[in-house]
Amino acid sequence: MKIRVSVLREFNEPLLIEERELPSLKEKEILVRIKSSGVCGSDIHMWKGKDLRTPLPLILGHEGVGVVEDIKGKKQDIFGERIKIGDFIIWDRGLVCGNCYFCVIKKEPSLCVNRQVYGITRDGCYATHIILLKETKIIKIEEKIDPAILVSASCSGATAAHAISQCEISKEDTVIIQGPGPMGIFALAFARERGAEKVFVIGTKRSEKRLKLCLEFGATGILNINETSFEERISYIKEETKGVGASVVINCTNSSSALREGLKMTAPGGTYALPGIATPIGDTPVSFYEDIVRKNIKIQGIWVSDTAHLYQAVRLILSKKYPFEKLITRKFSLKEATEALKSVDTRKVIKAVLIP
Amino acid sequence: MKIRVSVLREFNEPLLIEERELPSLKEKEILVRIKSSGVCGSDIHMWKGKDLRTPLPLILGHEGVGVVEDIKGKKQDIFGERIKIGDFIIWDRGLVCGNCYFCVIKKEPSLCVNRQVYGITRDGCYATHIILLKETKIIKIEEKIDPAILVSASCSGATAAHAISQCEISKEDTVIIQGPGPMGIFALAFARERGAEKVFVIGTKRSEKRLKLCLEFGATGILNINETSFEERISYIKEETKGVGASVVINCTNSSSALREGLKMTAPGGTYALPGIATPIGDTPVSFYEDIVRKNIKIQGIWVSDTAHLYQAVRLILSKKYPFEKLITRKFSLKEATEALKSVDTRKVIKAVLIP
Amino acid sequence: MKIRVSVLREFNEPLLIEERELPSLKEKEILVRIKSSGVCGSDIHMWKGKDLRTPLPLILGHEGVGVVEDIKGKKQDIFGERIKIGDFIIWDRGLVCGNCYFCVIKKEPSLCVNRQVYGITRDGCYATHIILLKETKIIKIEEKIDPAILVSASCSGATAAHAISQCEISKEDTVIIQGPGPMGIFALAFARERGAEKVFVIGTKRSEKRLKLCLEFGATGILNINETSFEERISYIKEETKGVGASVVINCTNSSSALREGLKMTAPGGTYALPGIATPIGDTPVSFYEDIVRKNIKIQGIWVSDTAHLYQAVRLILSKKYPFEKLITRKFSLKEATEALKSVDTRKVIKAVLIP
Amino acid sequence: MKIRVSVLREFNEPLLIEERELPSLKEKEILVRIKSSGVCGSDIHMWKGKDLRTPLPLILGHEGVGVVEDIKGKKQDIFGERIKIGDFIIWDRGLVCGNCYFCVIKKEPSLCVNRQVYGITRDGCYATHIILLKETKIIKIEEKIDPAILVSASCSGATAAHAISQCEISKEDTVIIQGPGPMGIFALAFARERGAEKVFVIGTKRSEKRLKLCLEFGATGILNINETSFEERISYIKEETKGVGASVVINCTNSSSALREGLKMTAPGGTYALPGIATPIGDTPVSFYEDIVRKNIKIQGIWVSDTAHLYQAVRLILSKKYPFEKLITRKFSLKEATEALKSVDTRKVIKAVLIP
Repeated sequence: MKIRVSVLREFNEPLLIEERELPSLKEKEILVRIKSSGVCGSDIHMWKGKDLRTPLPLILGHEGVGVVEDIKGKKQDIFGERIKIGDFIIWDRGLVCGNCYFCVIKKEPSLCVNRQVYGITRDGCYATHIILLKETKIIKIEEKIDPAILVSASCSGATAAHAISQCEISKEDTVIIQGPGPMGIFALAFARERGAEKVFVIGTKRSEKRLKLCLEFGATGILNINETSFEERISYIKEETKGVGASVVINCTNSSSALREGLKMTAPGGTYALPGIATPIGDTPVSFYEDIVRKNIKIQGIWVSDTAHLYQAVRLILSKKYPFEKLITRKFSLKEATEALKSVDTRKVIKAVLIP
Repeated sequence: MKIRVSVLREFNEPLLIEERELPSLKEKEILVRIKSSGVCGSDIHMWKGKDLRTPLPLILGHEGVGVVEDIKGKKQDIFGERIKIGDFIIWDRGLVCGNCYFCVIKKEPSLCVNRQVYGITRDGCYATHIILLKETKIIKIEEKIDPAILVSASCSGATAAHAISQCEISKEDTVIIQGPGPMGIFALAFARERGAEKVFVIGTKRSEKRLKLCLEFGATGILNINETSFEERISYIKEETKGVGASVVINCTNSSSALREGLKMTAPGGTYALPGIATPIGDTPVSFYEDIVRKNIKIQGIWVSDTAHLYQAVRLILSKKYPFEKLITRKFSLKEATEALKSVDTRKVIKAVLIP
Repeated sequence: MKIRVSVLREFNEPLLIEERELPSLKEKEILVRIKSSGVCGSDIHMWKGKDLRTPLPLILGHEGVGVVEDIKGKKQDIFGERIKIGDFIIWDRGLVCGNCYFCVIKKEPSLCVNRQVYGITRDGCYATHIILLKETKIIKIEEKIDPAILVSASCSGATAAHAISQCEISKEDTVIIQGPGPMGIFALAFARERGAEKVFVIGTKRSEKRLKLCLEFGATGILNINETSFEERISYIKEETKGVGASVVINCTNSSSALREGLKMTAPGGTYALPGIATPIGDTPVSFYEDIVRKNIKIQGIWVSDTAHLYQAVRLILSKKYPFEKLITRKFSLKEATEALKSVDTRKVIKAVLIP
Repeated sequence: MKIRVSVLREFNEPLLIEERELPSLKEKEILVRIKSSGVCGSDIHMWKGKDLRTPLPLILGHEGVGVVEDIKGKKQDIFGERIKIGDFIIWDRGLVCGNCYFCVIKKEPSLCVNRQVYGITRDGCYATHIILLKETKIIKIEEKIDPAILVSASCSGATAAHAISQCEISKEDTVIIQGPGPMGIFALAFARERGAEKVFVIGTKRSEKRLKLCLEFGATGILNINETSFEERISYIKEETKGVGASVVINCTNSSSALREGLKMTAPGGTYALPGIATPIGDTPVSFYEDIVRKNIKIQGIWVSDTAHLYQAVRLILSKKYPFEKLITRKFSLKEATEALKSVDTRKVIKAVLIP
C-alpha cells in the first residue's frame, strides 16, 4: 500500500512530500489513517537541527490521532476493549520496553532506557498513515470530538499532566503558570481541576492573545512581562497570597530568566516544576541558598510523559469544561507542513495542526 | 541567681566570660544546668559576622542538653510525662508560634514565620544555665548517655533527619553523601537505617579522618576528591550502580562545586537534597536541561528542622548502633569557647563540645 | 457581662434558655457575638445521651461564626493579621495542645491527646456569645457571606476536607459518595474540585431532596437505595467505570450496610474513606479477603479535622462555585434550639442553623 | 527434550512424578534448570483444593530459581544485561500484560487484569526444568548464594516487601508482626531495614522455634499467644510505646482473631497492613468506629507483589545481614514433594524447599 508523507531530509530546508510503500502489518500492528497531526514546538527545534539526536531522513510528528484502517490479529486498548477497523484512536507517542529498571523497578516508564518516540526517534505522523507497533498503548475515543482539538493531548497535554501530578495542590493554594503556550494552557486547566484557588499566568507581549485566552480557561489573572517590571510582578503575587508566594509554580517556557523569576515567586515549602525546559538552555546561575534552601522548596524536573498522563489530558479535553477548540488557531494540509512549522516558530498561531 | 556565660560582643573577637543575673521563672519555664553545648559550623559564621542576622551581644550555642534545676508550674515533655527537677533533657532549638500559616495550614513548623532560635536569634547554650521558655518542645532522656555525644542531635542530627525524610529510599537504592562532617555522618547513618543498599561518602583530603570514620558508620565506600578526578568519581558511581547513578544524593557541604557534581551523580528519577547549603554561596550556574529536567530529578531544599526530626536524631544516637562517641573529638570548657570555635574552623576536630 | 445560652441539662429533654455571667477576658482571649451556630448530626447524639462523653450541663454547638466584640491584648489570625473588634471570624472547633506526640512528632493535631472541643467537651455556640481561648485558631473572613452559609464549614465541611486529603484522586477517577447529608455534599464538591471525572451519590428515599440537590453540586448521577437493588447499583457502577469500580468511595453515612456496600464498589487499588462513622455502630462483619486484600484497597478511618481542613472548607464555600446556600434549609432562633434538633433528627431539613 | 515434573492430578492425593516432552523454545523464551523450588503455604491450599481457581492437572511451584540452559534469541534482565547460558537467575512469578488499566494507568502491575502466575494459573517449578515466557521479568544473580536460601524471595519475601512499601515507618516507630512464618520473618527484617526502633513478633506455641528465630533476625521482643492473654499483650505493647500503640502492624497470619487483635494494637494515625490474608477466612466482625475511625488508622490490603518487590527481597537476602539460611529447615527431592507439602502443613519445618 502507498501512503504520502512529509519528510525532513535536510535541516532548515522545506519538508518534502513523498510517496512511501508500506510494509505489511506484523502481529498486533495497526494501520492508522491520520486525521490530525499536531505541530509541536520541538518540531521546530528538530527542523532547525538544534536537536542533535534527530535522525535524517525523518517523518516528523509525535502528536497524532486517526482512524484504524487495518489490524493484524487481536489488539486491545488499555481498557481491554478490542480495537476494530473504523475505531477513532489516540496513542502514547512513546514506546517503552516494559522490561528495564525504570519500567519495572521504578515504575517510571517515561524514563525507560529503551524509549522510542514516533516522530522523534522514528517516523511519525506528518503523513497520511502510520503503522503503530504492537507495544503502542492505545486509547479508543468513543466521544465525538474534532480530531484537531484532541491531538494536543499527545504531547503538551500529557506533559502538563505529568507536571501537575508532581505538584501537591491544596484547595487554598495559588499556582503560577509561566508561559501561555499550549503546555501552559493545559497546566492552567489542570491546576483549576486540582482545585487551586488562584491561578496566574505570565507571558509576553508577543503572546498577548494567548494570555487573553487564559482568562477563558479560568485564569485568576494574567501578567504581561513587557508591561510590568519584575518587582511589580513579585509584589503583585505577594499581595495576592497574603505575603506567602505561590505554593506551585510551573515553568512552561524554555527561558533562563523565567526560571530565575519563578524561583523568586515560589512560596516557602512550595514546588517549582519545569516541564517547559525541553531543549538545552545553557547554564542558569541560581542562588541555591536564598531561593531554594532558605525556602525549603522542591524543584521538580519533568521529562516527557507516560500513558497515564496522556489519558488524563484526553479526559480533560473530552470533559468539554474548557474551550480547547480555541487553542487550534490554524489547520494546514500535509503539503503546507513547512508553512505550519514557520507559523508556530513566529507565534502567528497558538497551536497549528496538519490535516493530512 | 547568677550564671556564667560566654558572650559574643564583637565579631572576630574572643568571646567574653561574664556573669549574668537570671530573672525569676515565669509559668511553665524551666531552668536548665547545661551539661554540654555543641559547637556548630554556623557558630563560626556568626562569630565571623558572616550571618547578617546575628544580634550583638549574643550568647551563642543552639545545641544543648542539660539537667533541670528548677521549674515554675507543671510542664510536660512531648510524651505527656511531667518534667521534674533532676531530669536530663534535650529540646528543640527552634521556638515556633503554632498559630501561623506554616504551623497550622502547611504543618511545616520549621517554616514558622515567627520562628526564634536559642543561640541564634536569642541567647543560647554557651553558658552554665539557660531558661527554656514555655513554648520549648522538650524530650526527656531516660537512657544513660554521655551528654557530649547526645548534643549533636540538636542541629546537625535533626537537619540530617529532615533531609532523609524528604528522600524516598528503597532497599535497592544507592545514596551518596557529600561532605563527611557531623551532618554528613548523621545522613550516612540515617541512610543506612532506611535500608539503602550502598552509601558512598565524598570528602576532601582535609577531612580524611572523617572519611575513615564514615567506614565505621557503615559507608560502602569513600571518595577523596583530592585523590580522584571528577570523571573518575562519576564513572565509579556509574559502575557501582549498573549505570543508573545514585537515587539519592545529599549535599552536606556548603560548596558550589559539590552542588554541580552532585547533580551529575543523581540518577534519573532521583532526589538531590541540600541540607548543607546553610549560608549564602552566591550564584551557582547549573544546566537545568541536562542535569534536572532531562533526568526528571527532584531537588529538595532543606531548611533547619522541627521537633520530629530532633526526636529521630535522638533515637538514632540512643540506639547505639553507630559509634557517635567517635564524632566528639574534643571537649572544651566554657572559657575555652573561642578556642573551640577556632578548632572547628580549621577542622582540627570533627565535632567540638563545650562542657560549661 | 450577661449572655443568653441554650443549655442541655438532661438528655432527651428540651434545652433550657438561661442567662450567664461571663468572666472577664484573659490575655489573648476573644469575646465573640455568635451570628450563626450550626446544628450538626452529632448534636442529636449528644442530646439523646448516646455520646457517653457528654458532660452535663453543656451548651451544645461546635459549629459557629461570629463577630469580635472584645479582645484582651493582641491576637492574630493564622495569616498573621491582627484581629480587631468588628471582625467577622470563624475558628477551629478543636483546641489542641501543640506539645504532644501527635501535635509535634506526627503532625496530626486532630489526634492531639489533649484535644478539647467547643460544644462537645466544653461550652459551645448555642448562645449569644462565646469566649474563645487563646489557643483557638482563627480565620478572618473578609468576603461578604451569609453567616448561616459559612457555618457548615466548621464541622461537616472540615471533616469532608480531611477525608478528601487522604484520597488520591486522578483526573480519570470515579468517586462515590455514600450519604447526601451536609458532609456528603461537601465531599461531593471537594471531589469535583479535585477533578474527579465522575462523582456518584447514593442516598435513601428519605433523603430524596438532598439527592436532587447533589445534581446541582455537580454529581454525575444519583442512586436511591430504595428504588434500586444492591445488584443494580453494583452493576451500574461497573458499567460507568469500564468494569473497574470507583477508585475512591467516601462513606458519609453512619450505617453498617452502607459500609459493606461501599467495600464492594471500591476498585482494586482504590481507597475507601470513612468520615461518616462518627458514632458507635457496633461490629460490622466484613470479608477482608474478598473485599480488601484481594483488591489491594486502602480503608482510611477519618476522625474529625484540623485547621487546615477547616480553611479548605471555608475557601470552598467562599469560591461561590457551589450553591451552598441551598444546604441551609431552615434557620431557628436560640429558643427554638430543641425544635432545630428535632427537625435535623427527622431529616425535615438538610442543614439547620441557629441565629442567636 | 524430556523433563521430570511432579504433578497435582487430584486434590488431596499424592503428587505424581511424570515425564514431559518440552516444546521447542519460541523467540525470547528461556529454558531453566530448576535449582530450588520453594514450598509455599498457598501450595498447601491448592493441594487441598481450597483454592477454587486451581486448574488440574497442574505442576505446582510459584517460587523458583535456576540456571539458564537454553535461550532463543536475545533476552535481557531488568538491568539490560544480556542473559547467557549458565546464568543463575530468579524471576517474577507473575506474568503481566503491560497494557491494561492497572499496568499502564495505575502502575500497579500486581493488579494486572491479565496476570498469570507460574505454579498457580499455569505450570510451575516442581520440576527439573521450566520454560520462561518472553514476558517474564528476570533478575541475574551474580553473588554466590545457596539457591535454597534465595528462593523464598519469590513469594513470601516479595509480598512482605510490598506490605512494607505501603507502611510509612519513621525511625521512632514501633512495628508489630503477627505470625512468624517466612512472610513474617521477611517483614521483620524489612521493618528493621526501614529503621523501626522496635519490632515485636507475635506467634503461637506451635511456632515457638520460629519466634526464637525472630530474635536472631533482630526482633525487639516476641509474644506467644498461648502464654499471654490478649489483655497482657495489649498492655505490654502500650507500655513499650509510651501508651501510643504500634504505628505499623503487619498481619502475616491468615486468622480472623489475629486481625481483630492487630486492630487493637495499631496506634492512632497508624497503618495495619494485611499481606497474610491470602485465602478466604469468611466474615470478620470489626468495630469500625472504635478500631478504625476513632483512631484515624489506615488498613491496607496487600495482594501479591510485583518485580520491584521481588528485587527488594532478593537484595535483602543478598545483603547477608540476616540469617535467612536458618529459615530453610528442610530440603526435599522432587519425588518427596508430597512429603514436603505435609511437613509445611504441620509446621514441622519453617520453610521447605525442593531440590529437583
